[in-house]
Amino acid sequence: MFSYTLHATDGAARAGTIATAHGDVPTPSFMAVGTAGTVKAMTADAVRATGARVVLGNTYHLMLRPTAERVASLGGLHKMMDWPGPILTDSGGFQVMSLAKLRKMDEAGVTFRSHLDGSAHFLSPERSTEIQHLLDATISMVLDECTPHPATYDEAASSMALTHRWAVRSRAAFQPRAGYAQFGIVQGSTYEVLRRDAAATLAAQNFEGYAIGGLAVGEGQDTMFAMLDITAPCLPAQKPRYLMGVGTPDDLLGSVARGVDMFDCVMPTRAGRTARAFTSHGIFNLRNARFIDDAGPLDEACPCLCCARHSRAYLHHLFRCEEMLGPILLTTHNLTYYQSLMQGARAAILAGRFETYYATTRAGWADG
Amino acid sequence: MFSYTLHATDGAARAGTIATAHGDVPTPSFMAVGTAGTVKAMTADAVRATGARVVLGNTYHLMLRPTAERVASLGGLHKMMDWPGPILTDSGGFQVMSLAKLRKMDEAGVTFRSHLDGSAHFLSPERSTEIQHLLDATISMVLDECTPHPATYDEAASSMALTHRWAVRSRAAFQPRAGYAQFGIVQGSTYEVLRRDAAATLAAQNFEGYAIGGLAVGEGQDTMFAMLDITAPCLPAQKPRYLMGVGTPDDLLGSVARGVDMFDCVMPTRAGRTARAFTSHGIFNLRNARFIDDAGPLDEACPCLCCARHSRAYLHHLFRCEEMLGPILLTTHNLTYYQSLMQGARAAILAGRFETYYATTRAGWADG
Repeated sequence: MFSYTLHATDGAARAGTIATAHGDVPTPSFMAVGTAGTVKAMTADAVRATGARVVLGNTYHLMLRPTAERVASLGGLHKMMDWPGPILTDSGGFQVMSLAKLRKMDEAGVTFRSHLDGSAHFLSPERSTEIQHLLDATISMVLDECTPHPATYDEAASSMALTHRWAVRSRAAFQPRAGYAQFGIVQGSTYEVLRRDAAATLAAQNFEGYAIGGLAVGEGQDTMFAMLDITAPCLPAQKPRYLMGVGTPDDLLGSVARGVDMFDCVMPTRAGRTARAFTSHGIFNLRNARFIDDAGPLDEACPCLCCARHSRAYLHHLFRCEEMLGPILLTTHNLTYYQSLMQGARAAILAGRFETYYATTRAGWADG
Repeated sequence: MFSYTLHATDGAARAGTIATAHGDVPTPSFMAVGTAGTVKAMTADAVRATGARVVLGNTYHLMLRPTAERVASLGGLHKMMDWPGPILTDSGGFQVMSLAKLRKMDEAGVTFRSHLDGSAHFLSPERSTEIQHLLDATISMVLDECTPHPATYDEAASSMALTHRWAVRSRAAFQPRAGYAQFGIVQGSTYEVLRRDAAATLAAQNFEGYAIGGLAVGEGQDTMFAMLDITAPCLPAQKPRYLMGVGTPDDLLGSVARGVDMFDCVMPTRAGRTARAFTSHGIFNLRNARFIDDAGPLDEACPCLCCARHSRAYLHHLFRCEEMLGPILLTTHNLTYYQSLMQGARAAILAGRFETYYATTRAGWADG
């Protein structure tokens, strides 16, 4: 059975465990983004070594290459990418709107052309759900419209209504299986009344979990946190809450403080490929000449391969030479750092000292 | 102490063990090329998992970036790249001639400009030896001139004479340490009399080992093998023999058959980055559309991560999407394949059945 067990709360922050057909997920949890069936620059073993328990796959990318039907014929995404653990897939809707060409959206769904070869495709709530089924996603997402920012109240309300009609169709298309889940997505832009309406509407459909979408799209951290303060309490306490596409370490802790359980973001992996490191002393760019003779570890508090075995000077050298090992090691570190952050948050919530953990961690970022 | 122990011969093929300050090396041995202080696309752990026992560093690349002095200040190449095992460095001479700009060679050495930033540098037998010392190379190479192919007899003789004068200077500059070695390099182009002369001249200097250089430069496999047939018997039986920059799996087995103990080549790593796989069934290009639905392993005989966990279809997908995991997995496989080939050769020599191993392996390549 798919379930969420809430072990402890500390203020609004929650520590829990999600049980799935593919294993348990201690929360709060950061999911590693594995766009096209691979976490960029990482073997599956390396991803596991970071402490990641869930990998995210992108429906848009996978439906184009290698195609959902081909993934299914290869035994599903778990087998294809050597990730027997839980996999969450998005609906494809967000990337259709941000990457595809010649998009045309109507009540039925979205017709678009691939950004790769111009081929025509159609994504509807039913097809998105079918694709995610073919991929064998542990957690599927409903097809929604990620309301652009900024939006007028009327635009946001109209967009949200479409998302709700599509949520009903997505739910009807979903084939329940033990240990599998489908999450609804709360939209509503920056309007409190819409966020409350969305949470209540979706909660009534009894999804296995709830995502909060349409945030971190330019509204700023204060507004995002304000929307979480409104939305989280409206969601069922016995279901996991997933904040989509967020964010920086500071975004994560602030969102955990407001009751979010799950996150995904390309930030740690993308930053790792461009020499930017997230550490307990803040963000560093390893291309910076100040590191050329720095024999110390990237982050002395980090247990990862990169920090345990190599110097900042070596990382600087690797990026200067454009060696693939630079992105490999820094992605390893960044993902490990994000996991450590979530593990630290969880331990602090369980011990009833989350506020101290949050403050201490933020102070560390400022001292770099 | 640095030593070579010959355990068995089978025809001219040899099985032995090289003992060094940084560990033992069973031979025949293929060394993984780690140009700029990293085996491209591989963590040090991943290189170890392929079975590689020696890594090669390139003096030319390292003297430019991060510089030999900086490597020394970081504790040497072993520590910098997390490779406590044996490291062999080349002299830098070959790459000065193939990569650097505005080269000017005279009796003293080579003045050149970096291909990276045009900065001026000087490499002499003494400086090359000093750089390799700073890098903390387990095995250093003398500075030689790799005679271009084709060369007239007079050109080859003159080039070889320079190599011999530089060998004397390199030897004088070398600081002996227990478990460390310096190898002389046999040149002589495709002239039997020169090859014999070179082997005898260098043998008299009592290097810890001997390299055979100036081959695999366009002369063809038949000529290369003919030169090995001439050269190997002229080298001391109680010293290791290293064929520089060679080669294909077929080159390796043919050279082992002729008494070579050590190899290095960029082929398995470079091929791995361009979707070419060396397997027990020959060479495949994983970009080929024939693999798009191939759920089988790349090489069912191979124990590596790539073959044990993934399908050819997944590898095809990764290269098609230009995902870094493609080069990572295929480099892992190719290096593992090269190591397996050398391990198989060694076991066959020890069992007195090298000829059968050689024939069976070649038959496998033909059946793909």
